[in-house]
Amino acid sequence: MSGGGEALAELAALLPGAVLTASEDIEPYRRDRALDPAAGVPLAVALPGSTAEVQAVVAWASRHGVPIVPRGMGTGLSGGATAVAGGIVLSTERMRAVTVDPATRTATVQPGLLNSELKAAVAERGLWYPPDPASFDICSIGGNIATNAGGLCCVKYGVTVDYVLGLEVVLADGRAIRLGGPLVKDVAGLSLVKLFVGSEGTLGVVTEIIVRLLPAPPAPRRVVAWFSSSSQAAAAIGEIAAAIRPSLLEYMDRNAVNAVEDLLGLGLDRSAEAFVLAGSDDLDPSGRDIATMVEAFGRHGATLVEETSPERGEQLAHARRVAIPAVEARGRLLLSDVGAPIPRLGGLIAGIERIAAQHRTEIAFIAHAGDGNTHPLVVFDPADVEAQRRAEAAYGEIMSLAVSLGGTISGEHGVGKLKRPWLESQIGADVLEIGQQIKDALDPQGIMNPGAIFEARAR
Amino acid sequence: MSGGGEALAELAALLPGAVLTASEDIEPYRRDRALDPAAGVPLAVALPGSTAEVQAVVAWASRHGVPIVPRGMGTGLSGGATAVAGGIVLSTERMRAVTVDPATRTATVQPGLLNSELKAAVAERGLWYPPDPASFDICSIGGNIATNAGGLCCVKYGVTVDYVLGLEVVLADGRAIRLGGPLVKDVAGLSLVKLFVGSEGTLGVVTEIIVRLLPAPPAPRRVVAWFSSSSQAAAAIGEIAAAIRPSLLEYMDRNAVNAVEDLLGLGLDRSAEAFVLAGSDDLDPSGRDIATMVEAFGRHGATLVEETSPERGEQLAHARRVAIPAVEARGRLLLSDVGAPIPRLGGLIAGIERIAAQHRTEIAFIAHAGDGNTHPLVVFDPADVEAQRRAEAAYGEIMSLAVSLGGTISGEHGVGKLKRPWLESQIGADVLEIGQQIKDALDPQGIMNPGAIFEARAR
Repeated sequence: MSGGGEALAELAALLPGAVLTASEDIEPYRRDRALDPAAGVPLAVALPGSTAEVQAVVAWASRHGVPIVPRGMGTGLSGGATAVAGGIVLSTERMRAVTVDPATRTATVQPGLLNSELKAAVAERGLWYPPDPASFDICSIGGNIATNAGGLCCVKYGVTVDYVLGLEVVLADGRAIRLGGPLVKDVAGLSLVKLFVGSEGTLGVVTEIIVRLLPAPPAPRRVVAWFSSSSQAAAAIGEIAAAIRPSLLEYMDRNAVNAVEDLLGLGLDRSAEAFVLAGSDDLDPSGRDIATMVEAFGRHGATLVEETSPERGEQLAHARRVAIPAVEARGRLLLSDVGAPIPRLGGLIAGIERIAAQHRTEIAFIAHAGDGNTHPLVVFDPADVEAQRRAEAAYGEIMSLAVSLGGTISGEHGVGKLKRPWLESQIGADVLEIGQQIKDALDPQGIMNPGAIFEARAR
Repeated sequence: MSGGGEALAELAALLPGAVLTASEDIEPYRRDRALDPAAGVPLAVALPGSTAEVQAVVAWASRHGVPIVPRGMGTGLSGGATAVAGGIVLSTERMRAVTVDPATRTATVQPGLLNSELKAAVAERGLWYPPDPASFDICSIGGNIATNAGGLCCVKYGVTVDYVLGLEVVLADGRAIRLGGPLVKDVAGLSLVKLFVGSEGTLGVVTEIIVRLLPAPPAPRRVVAWFSSSSQAAAAIGEIAAAIRPSLLEYMDRNAVNAVEDLLGLGLDRSAEAFVLAGSDDLDPSGRDIATMVEAFGRHGATLVEETSPERGEQLAHARRVAIPAVEARGRLLLSDVGAPIPRLGGLIAGIERIAAQHRTEIAFIAHAGDGNTHPLVVFDPADVEAQRRAEAAYGEIMSLAVSLGGTISGEHGVGKLKRPWLESQIGADVLEIGQQIKDALDPQGIMNPGAIFEARAR
């Protein structure tokens, strides 16, 4: 940056009282939940409270060539919000407005609002915002947009991008644009709304979002099944996913179940190899979905299958949602979100078990199994350098395995900075180059979240 | 083009027997259903049969700087496939393979396959491809991808882009890339799949598509309502769309009903101002959806409301689907697909009635009313120059009206070449510029469908 001190004073004057520069104030903004050890020390953290203030910050950064790392609530798991040395962190945490319009069945939201707060605001009007990352109580809508976040209900209801109808975006030069609107059908020009969703802050800063809502869903019925073999569980899941539209189809392995049981004491079966929780919110009075699930689980050797009470079903869904923090209690995590086509789910699980054994590393495995999106949680003791090395090797091999199965290195967390080394192996050099060309067109200076998805330019 | 004759001979040698140059062979490829009077005479029509042949054609065009107009079955309604003088038309009509994979619930399709053929192929496996443009018997999947086509079921099931998981695309330099795959969740890199859907051949030629399928839907129940006032019908539609998730919510005005009745003789009420057909495929045994519809129609003054038999319901849905050709029998059409947020639907209809009166022009009005996407059909006698002028003025004013209501100039047909003059008024100069920058990055010579969405470059 040219003339560091002066420029910072200029930034502070643009956002009086909303620019942090003291090192103890900056520290909490250096990393997201991925705890990227390579995080830099930024010059400052900017906390704009409006689109106009975001524009002022970005225009300032553009004038001075300062990198910007946009940040929601810092719950990202791929290092998408890892701070960059010499850059600034732009946190949207103060931008939290929401208005609900039942007539168009949409909500207009600022990016700092929590996912659970949006859910609550629309529920007051009898409406529902489906995307439900397990972290919905602590993650922001802006972060959900940045990563095209998924969750548990996606197996039936789709992912974040399926619910985004409009965006306001501040571009890398400080201009604000509006894309889309409260319209389900709108094909006027290129699909820029969809392009910005999942772009992880590399193309601009999202400052307002129009989301599509649904009527509140019917209460689900749920079935839990326990298996002594992961391959049998995977086979049953594949059959169910191909036959019906479950609203929930989740998986935990023995390691995850034990970690959750340590935390919650729900009386889970600690000895089983696999726990599967399936749900249906279909209103078919014949109960066909539940019968299909029970039959498939039974035929594939489940040791126990039962429809749960609504209360027990909630407990078990909660158990699945807290699996990541529960496993985190056992050590540091390298948290992946690889996916594979459903018929390859069994191969993915078996391969991960092999990788865990080869690298003598604990891997707890949970999955949004019904859509093939999985979370192998590689656990290690951060004090043990050798264990960390083995864990990192396992983390990389899991991504290579997913790619070899026709899957993805990231189903819902984003590439961020931590998964970038594996991106080309999945999408290929040509596709990476096209993405880079689009990035260069929209951000010619390369100041928007450098190092996320794309390699940072030499400055 | 440099050295015209030689270059054409080179093209013919690349695709033996699959390059048309005789003027009578070329003529049917000059226009799509929009019948753009400004259509040019292309040098040739290329009919590649494989991705490799598409690559050969595009690489040839790139070498010689020849514009390419990609074309599906030519059913487009915005002039997206209008031929360009001195260019070539690349028709995908020979690329018609389809494979269905029930295990991943996806189909892999070449772009020349008809929408109805895809529906039939997956129905054999008990599966369903939802997007259903009224032209589904004659339109190609490639064209559906190009325009992000909609249809009748979109009010509940979404549009084409919601079903596209993967694409193979031939870029403007002849390289072929693969994007996405049979995965519902995949966030590795920018969302290029979604960007290419709806790009109308301006960024590349789509040569293969992986679509997501659903299990066959339950049989719908349907309610028909007749109104003596369009504003009452619109009010009822707005309430229903906000309250439940209908699987069908279609509208025809008196002009459209009379045209359809002339064609089919179904005993429709020729004197009513508005016909509304609503459907629900919800399995709720309480019949809540049907009750909600009947109640809303009645409360807003419907002159007749009744649940139809399944057979009559099919007849009425068919009546709605043939409305465009039925009205076409009355003269030449300028066919629009403007949309508005649902609460503005009544305002849109009233405004269109005003425009018809002001310009002494017949406008038949049909709509996928439940998602605010409408089809004002401006009818004129092509032998009457003055009538044509009035019709063109009305066509333009309808788009300006939609924009003034916070709506769109195109809900599902695309901008093509005919709606381009109105695009900036909706999306603004900045958004248009960003689209152009992306276009320039991917197609630096500007050979991909010049004049569609973006202004053609001077060559």
